[in-house]
Amino acid sequence: MRITLIGSGNVATHLGAAFKNAGHQLVQVWSRNLQHAALLAYHVKAEPVDQLCELSSETDLILISVKDDAVDEVASFINLKTKLVVHTCGAVSMQVLEKYFDRCGVFYPLQTFSKTRGLDFKTVPLCIESTDKNSMDILLDLGKTISNNVNIIDSNQRKTLHLAAAFACNFPNYLYQIAADLLESEQLNFDLLKPLILETALKVQEFLPAKVQTGPAIRRDEQTMSAHLHLLQQNPKWQEIYRLLSQGIIKMGEPGSA
Amino acid sequence: MRITLIGSGNVATHLGAAFKNAGHQLVQVWSRNLQHAALLAYHVKAEPVDQLCELSSETDLILISVKDDAVDEVASFINLKTKLVVHTCGAVSMQVLEKYFDRCGVFYPLQTFSKTRGLDFKTVPLCIESTDKNSMDILLDLGKTISNNVNIIDSNQRKTLHLAAAFACNFPNYLYQIAADLLESEQLNFDLLKPLILETALKVQEFLPAKVQTGPAIRRDEQTMSAHLHLLQQNPKWQEIYRLLSQGIIKMGEPGSA
Repeated sequence: MRITLIGSGNVATHLGAAFKNAGHQLVQVWSRNLQHAALLAYHVKAEPVDQLCELSSETDLILISVKDDAVDEVASFINLKTKLVVHTCGAVSMQVLEKYFDRCGVFYPLQTFSKTRGLDFKTVPLCIESTDKNSMDILLDLGKTISNNVNIIDSNQRKTLHLAAAFACNFPNYLYQIAADLLESEQLNFDLLKPLILETALKVQEFLPAKVQTGPAIRRDEQTMSAHLHLLQQNPKWQEIYRLLSQGIIKMGEPGSA
Repeated sequence: MRITLIGSGNVATHLGAAFKNAGHQLVQVWSRNLQHAALLAYHVKAEPVDQLCELSSETDLILISVKDDAVDEVASFINLKTKLVVHTCGAVSMQVLEKYFDRCGVFYPLQTFSKTRGLDFKTVPLCIESTDKNSMDILLDLGKTISNNVNIIDSNQRKTLHLAAAFACNFPNYLYQIAADLLESEQLNFDLLKPLILETALKVQEFLPAKVQTGPAIRRDEQTMSAHLHLLQQNPKWQEIYRLLSQGIIKMGEPGSA
């Protein structure tokens, strides 16, 4: 397929690379910042542009991969009204595009992307939605060329999925950083925690998290929790996080809970 | 070595198996509950006992692996005062054992153990502390027979490490469960989030978490955060967690922060 990338951030970069690897043709890369467009365009052998009026009509799919709250504005400036246009955002409904295009959809890769880290796209769950059967088939087929995990997910489900991703990824990552800061305060290397972090993620590939919860809160080990809170006394925000999450774990462990 | 296991929980079970696999002799397994002792004793070919006065003196190491707040009491009932005695708890100081034994130490495996899941012990960081050089050497040598990651860690460092483990493991696991519950509410399968959870953990094997933080909070995407909080309106506790952790991520992203 001939694909136009609107955006040059983490998602556009990883999707662009995956499309290129799967043999698709990247036509143009647009970014407000021409240098950013040029960098990604160089990697995927496309033409960089920084004006939406410069978009070529010689394309089969326009993929908008910009910050959630910029999708609407960017879409409004795309004049290729008959093209199939999708966005890649978890938290933005398809309706935003329906205002401007007859054939549109969503192509949301449920993964955490950083430019610095390569990734096997084949395992990334793709969440697809579309206005019509024909566009849906095109998007499903396209999805299958880059991933083994292609799902039809409607806008409401996707919103919940995107919210769940904050709990499954963004928040755990932040807690890892608190752990790293705590270790640093005792001149300990973050490496010590890496096997634990990995095993915690591996466990839930196999079991529901509630079934493999460990630590003082699920054991209701008050003495250890008090000692932990005492150690955190220099940082009331971290104490608050500790208290709130421990309360949640204790509640989860109560009879009658999941 | 001849090793006596005091306790039959997750840690005792995994350590017992690792010692057995490394060719050590498990002498006895003690538990308050004789059936629990018998189950683990069966697996490691040891004798089960439920009375601490029945402990055999034909052993080289007594390893106490019980709930943190039971270590002191259990230790007080062990009459083999000249034996090398260690506990396996992250949050308990070595001093608790020094009250009762001349030669003692700590043998803390920094990992999350569930009986239902096997584990390659070779990658588990072992944190070793001891009262004397000779015991330290014994514990380091023993540690190296089951793990490639043996570290000398004092009681203060270990306390911080144990606290950090709550942030790196126990709390993320709880957040995974919230994510699973959110998905269930939309009839979505938890499998959808598994690649994301794994990638989040894999990323920080390579990069510091702050460097690979993603999601609406680090982008200060207020619109998406508001939409997420709205979706959580049926669950004020989860809203509170969302707010608190998002605030922390926003602060982490401020100029001048790590």
